Amino acid sequence: MKLFTYYRSSASYRVRIGLNVKGLAYESIPIHLRKGEHRAEVYRDVNAQGLVPALIDDTQRAIPQSLAILEYLDEKYPTPPLLPVSIEDRAQVRSLALAIACDIHPLNNLRVLQYLRHTLQQNEESVTAWYRHWIAEGFDAIEQSAARYSGQGRYCYGDHLSLADACLIPQWYNARLFGCDLARYPTLASICAHLESQPAFIAARPEAQPDAE
Amino acid sequence: MKLFTYYRSSASYRVRIGLNVKGLAYESIPIHLRKGEHRAEVYRDVNAQGLVPALIDDTQRAIPQSLAILEYLDEKYPTPPLLPVSIEDRAQVRSLALAIACDIHPLNNLRVLQYLRHTLQQNEESVTAWYRHWIAEGFDAIEQSAARYSGQGRYCYGDHLSLADACLIPQWYNARLFGCDLARYPTLASICAHLESQPAFIAARPEAQPDAE
Repeated sequence: MKLFTYYRSSASYRVRIGLNVKGLAYESIPIHLRKGEHRAEVYRDVNAQGLVPALIDDTQRAIPQSLAILEYLDEKYPTPPLLPVSIEDRAQVRSLALAIACDIHPLNNLRVLQYLRHTLQQNEESVTAWYRHWIAEGFDAIEQSAARYSGQGRYCYGDHLSLADACLIPQWYNARLFGCDLARYPTLASICAHLESQPAFIAARPEAQPDAE
Repeated sequence: MKLFTYYRSSASYRVRIGLNVKGLAYESIPIHLRKGEHRAEVYRDVNAQGLVPALIDDTQRAIPQSLAILEYLDEKYPTPPLLPVSIEDRAQVRSLALAIACDIHPLNNLRVLQYLRHTLQQNEESVTAWYRHWIAEGFDAIEQSAARYSGQGRYCYGDHLSLADACLIPQWYNARLFGCDLARYPTLASICAHLESQPAFIAARPEAQPDAE
């Protein structure tokens, strides 16, 4: 399998976790976001949105969107699963994953921060405040859900790894980079400490990627 | 089933489409976003994120997140399906849905526009430009995908209704409200004209809701 990725892309990081958890080998094709390689024609042919990641599937089509890729991997390679068995539990796991993937990450994406800086002429203090605001809005709620649903503070939902964990870790990693106050989230801190010690997660870290600078 | 909803909420609109397509009866519980009812303690107990929609499932738990609800409905009530059969096709449909649900809608949500207005002191012209910018970024790409994958310009993917259609229509509706240039998207226009004539979609429209003003 081929994965178009960027070492610092949080959405790519999610997919790398999923691939590693399932023990799937893949070829990394780096797309350098800060150099604008995602906007080049050749990459737009792969993914019209010009975002990473994109996974080339067995039919040689590109799947954009990290959560679509994770669901694809889970349907194609069901073991170990990224979703629980019960329909009700699956809905809760997907809700946790989407609370990060829809309601935190897109607001703090590089292209949005660049719009704030360049089009809206915001200074770094204002951009950082924006970043931290959406992290706090999201993590305040996810901490409550995790406190309710995490089994022993090792995974977001119950006692098994899921889609939600693959979304949480990259967001936690970025929140730490931006100096967010993470002491407010004891359950998430416990889950992340556990997950970050796991080989599949260690190998997916930005600094472990071939294109890391 | 009970659905916490707001007539103008685009994410609620998606779920209403899904419920109607599957012919499921439900009770609407309106949460007035502009009056701030979503921030009240009583609603935070339902959904810690304080966002609509939320669906109460058979175990009396709330499912937040519209796409998690639509996947839940599709697993619980499989006919008619909201996802194709083949794993590869499912991935493409989910990618289209997520391109809207992650990369357009969260940036143009009420809470984000309010942050631009109040915290960043942006005027209405700037807020409208922001809105249209993210619509154009997203729709430019989705138009390309739809042109490639739509069967006869009636659905986003192939010749069957899917999750992607349930996401497209509310976004199209809002883009029209904000005066976006929709002539640039002939395939999407054709799909939306078809879908907006269908009873399940007509009944889900904001102005058809009991809480419409």
